[in-house]
Amino acid sequence: MWQYQAPLRDMQFVIEHWLEAPQAWAQTERFQDLDLALARQVLEEAGRFSSQVLAPINSSGDRQGCSFEAGRVTTPAGFVEAYVAYTEGGWSALACDEAYGGQGLPQLLDAALQEMLYASNHGWAMYTGIAHGAYLCLKAHAPQWIKARYLPQIVSGEVLPTMCLTEPQAGSDVGLLRCRAEPQDDGSYRVSGSKLFISGGDHDLSANILHLVLARLPGAPAGSRGISLFLVPKLLDHHQVNSVRCDGIEHKMGIKGSATCSLVFEQAQGWLIGEANRGLAAMFVMMNSARLHVGLQGLGHAEAAWQNARDYALERKQMRAPVRPAGISADAADPIHFHPAMRRTLLELRACTEGMRAVGYWVAHLLDEAEHQGSQADRQYALQLAELLTPVIKAFFTDQGFRQASNALQVFGGYGYVSEFAIEQTLRDSRIAMIYEGSNEIQANDLLLRKVLGDDGRAFAALLAVMRQESALALDASECAGFAAELERLCDKLEAVVAAVRERAGEDVEYPYRVAGDFLRLCGVALLGFAWVRGARVSRLLPDSDPVRASKLQTAQFFFAYVLPEADYRIASIRGAMARLAFVE
Amino acid sequence: MWQYQAPLRDMQFVIEHWLEAPQAWAQTERFQDLDLALARQVLEEAGRFSSQVLAPINSSGDRQGCSFEAGRVTTPAGFVEAYVAYTEGGWSALACDEAYGGQGLPQLLDAALQEMLYASNHGWAMYTGIAHGAYLCLKAHAPQWIKARYLPQIVSGEVLPTMCLTEPQAGSDVGLLRCRAEPQDDGSYRVSGSKLFISGGDHDLSANILHLVLARLPGAPAGSRGISLFLVPKLLDHHQVNSVRCDGIEHKMGIKGSATCSLVFEQAQGWLIGEANRGLAAMFVMMNSARLHVGLQGLGHAEAAWQNARDYALERKQMRAPVRPAGISADAADPIHFHPAMRRTLLELRACTEGMRAVGYWVAHLLDEAEHQGSQADRQYALQLAELLTPVIKAFFTDQGFRQASNALQVFGGYGYVSEFAIEQTLRDSRIAMIYEGSNEIQANDLLLRKVLGDDGRAFAALLAVMRQESALALDASECAGFAAELERLCDKLEAVVAAVRERAGEDVEYPYRVAGDFLRLCGVALLGFAWVRGARVSRLLPDSDPVRASKLQTAQFFFAYVLPEADYRIASIRGAMARLAFVE
Repeated sequence: MWQYQAPLRDMQFVIEHWLEAPQAWAQTERFQDLDLALARQVLEEAGRFSSQVLAPINSSGDRQGCSFEAGRVTTPAGFVEAYVAYTEGGWSALACDEAYGGQGLPQLLDAALQEMLYASNHGWAMYTGIAHGAYLCLKAHAPQWIKARYLPQIVSGEVLPTMCLTEPQAGSDVGLLRCRAEPQDDGSYRVSGSKLFISGGDHDLSANILHLVLARLPGAPAGSRGISLFLVPKLLDHHQVNSVRCDGIEHKMGIKGSATCSLVFEQAQGWLIGEANRGLAAMFVMMNSARLHVGLQGLGHAEAAWQNARDYALERKQMRAPVRPAGISADAADPIHFHPAMRRTLLELRACTEGMRAVGYWVAHLLDEAEHQGSQADRQYALQLAELLTPVIKAFFTDQGFRQASNALQVFGGYGYVSEFAIEQTLRDSRIAMIYEGSNEIQANDLLLRKVLGDDGRAFAALLAVMRQESALALDASECAGFAAELERLCDKLEAVVAAVRERAGEDVEYPYRVAGDFLRLCGVALLGFAWVRGARVSRLLPDSDPVRASKLQTAQFFFAYVLPEADYRIASIRGAMARLAFVE
Repeated sequence: MWQYQAPLRDMQFVIEHWLEAPQAWAQTERFQDLDLALARQVLEEAGRFSSQVLAPINSSGDRQGCSFEAGRVTTPAGFVEAYVAYTEGGWSALACDEAYGGQGLPQLLDAALQEMLYASNHGWAMYTGIAHGAYLCLKAHAPQWIKARYLPQIVSGEVLPTMCLTEPQAGSDVGLLRCRAEPQDDGSYRVSGSKLFISGGDHDLSANILHLVLARLPGAPAGSRGISLFLVPKLLDHHQVNSVRCDGIEHKMGIKGSATCSLVFEQAQGWLIGEANRGLAAMFVMMNSARLHVGLQGLGHAEAAWQNARDYALERKQMRAPVRPAGISADAADPIHFHPAMRRTLLELRACTEGMRAVGYWVAHLLDEAEHQGSQADRQYALQLAELLTPVIKAFFTDQGFRQASNALQVFGGYGYVSEFAIEQTLRDSRIAMIYEGSNEIQANDLLLRKVLGDDGRAFAALLAVMRQESALALDASECAGFAAELERLCDKLEAVVAAVRERAGEDVEYPYRVAGDFLRLCGVALLGFAWVRGARVSRLLPDSDPVRASKLQTAQFFFAYVLPEADYRIASIRGAMARLAFVE
């Protein structure tokens, strides 16, 4: 019953009109030869792969889950075949350097690919999702021989990597981790300890698995300044098995096709990546990319929720609606999408999903610009914006992914709660993304404390400038002036609230921590507002006959009337949060 | 890992101080002999039953689920034994008439019992949860011989009833149902058709099951005015098996211990309950009680979420907090309940749970008053208030049950997502309550269209009067004046927003349907505000040494600073919802 069709039309709208990415590509050395036809073809083929290969094994993968026997993990039926098709299609190579066998395409196209993979089969996409971050990390920090040996294997998909951070006592707080590594005479290390919640810690998709492991060297300082990063392959030279043991897999609420493993390292052979005691810095290079990925999971779930709810609501008939579209006469019961509460839910699903797509792809595009665009200052500017936006993408998108999945489930009524329709799977799968890769509470602190208050507000001022620029453009665009004025007012409010938080934080050190969650949601809603002003404006440039024109204007109107009020609520919550929070007993 | 302890202290606070129920009981003929010691003992024993019998089989019941083989349902291990203990404890008889073997205790005590049953094991409590509604329905509408025969069996727990409404094409819209019933010469009927999503449609807890079935008589009018209610027992005289067949059970997101059945009736023998074609009216008698029950499920899940999150947060240590309680020095990591984001989540869990308990028990108490109190006018007044509040209880509480379960899951981090800790089960179990017994969207329409706009606002005015009376009392109570002023302002706003909606509805028929969901949430938050003003005020009357005093004042302060702002948001949303909603294509 559950189905997934890649929203190619809206993806193209964002890439070609909202971002005008092809014009930006033309100005870079790296992407100047990338033509629009190729970009579209990539999206179309990714859409086919996700809807024809991954979506059909999404529900069955959830039902079967992974199995663990005799120390080995078996993935659900079809997962291995899908992975073969994935590597043969070259998808693992998409945004990697040609030097290592990659296709050298933009992160932006990879973001669209990732959205499709997560939307069509989050459990499966967990195996491939970590690869690009690991690729970036090794490319930046690994010794030459490791790069030469392993990067081409990651790019081709011959090996899959993991990230081994969490230990039972060290989740959000990696500083508490206890895994240790002892240097050997041959320049390698012996890594020992237990790791928990390791996605893809074992599986049957690739013969070899490259574990990236955080551990402590002898005599390393306590806390997060004493952590180093090691590469520990499952298989060593000549297929010799390293002493890494999968101890079991978790039974989870969702993403059951993804093997979440406990790993035990017993004097396993590994190699230092980056500098000693600088493991977190080495991993940091993958952070923006990894958090963007998790945000795209939220977007993917929202998209899957939206299209399944829409299709069901168009078919299912229950009760008469108070108002019908012109020309439709009363029957015994109307399709439920005529009912105002359902219409509101469906429009919210559309407004949030399409708005998030614009913002999420923008960040991917900024990451491309940060690497390949014009001057050093341009790159720095793009990186600064991307880093500011990353926690919002991670937390707001995943929050929305879960919320919209729940909204969609409600559209299905009782059918939403039974497994047959699988929308309940979307809800269960989506929930993890609010937790891992830095919980949404940690993202909120990162945004407000570090990214906004921490750099004297420079990055935030740059963001406001971009939004005001859009507002100025839209003020002159037909039918968009009202939206533009709303966005301008919103920018003023954002500026004022940041100033107020900064002032208050001086006398009440806990204050920004209390309001960080509200501030992140405020930024998320504001970014959606920005997305809809620009979306409405650039849709005016499409031909009259294009149905996207009407849809974008309609949805922007809905957004400003029905979703934007949350912004004032969050501002009021921030300003009102003067009362100290009691300690619970 | 997951555990449940009945919150007896807060239940007593609500019953004895917030409601002053014992004083009210003393003024009724029915409950004048009910003394406080007995009421407390009932709660304590119910608490023991729920924490010692039901809670231990909550997770195992979820893992095993029900099985269906050869047309018969088997419930998870321990469910039958728990049911035996339940009936032997007399719990099925609690709020039933002594004439039928009941204990004749107030609905209020039954509400506390139900909260505990749902909190400790929602899946199990589905079997018993419907019984009281069926009891009320048969008591009001069944012929004398059916009452004499079956009511004592329901009260003793010898039989369990079901409600057979839904059919594949008829969910929210019972008017579309197709089941039919043909009259027989002996005064019985032959009932035929298929029913879907029937909770407890088959099971092994009781030998006989009494199906209450909605069906159409020959020649009945189309729609909801042609529906009649029938009693169709699974077993007839001399244990003869009636032709009711369980066709399968659903695989669901949660409440897996509850058998959700498809039933096929093939010329099954049944008897008319109430008048022909007045089946919905006959069922209506159980509506307030059934919807209150579902609301109590939300409360139960919020309570389970709160206590499990609190216990985990007190133990788990991660990272250093920006501020610690006085006298506690820094360690490598602080308990996570020191972190402001977690403190805010925990206080929200407490504020919502305890606030909902007061409001939910109030409605149960109003139902008691509506039946047993003083004058006809007093009874009518209590019933009017209970009917107004019922959709808020059903929808707002279940919305909160799900939301607070998600909040609690977040406190557990990665451990929240794995089955071992079972908080993810609370999330899954809680989700159904937003759907069944009239979806939350239907509740919102019922509240605004029927209960508020539909009766010239009389019931709503009565509610505002109660809230203003509290505000006047609290204005003079020490430390409560600020809360009282907030509540008074809120009442003014509620009055104004209803007037505005009424006016606007005259020119835009769809407008109230568009804002009904916001209005219901507004009422929910306002009722919590009322609960906290009164809670703070009456807690001032407790001895200084009682820790409840400090806790209630602290939590009220939190509520007004951190939760109440949602009220203004909902008001702004209602006032701003002028834009017509597009039809989705």
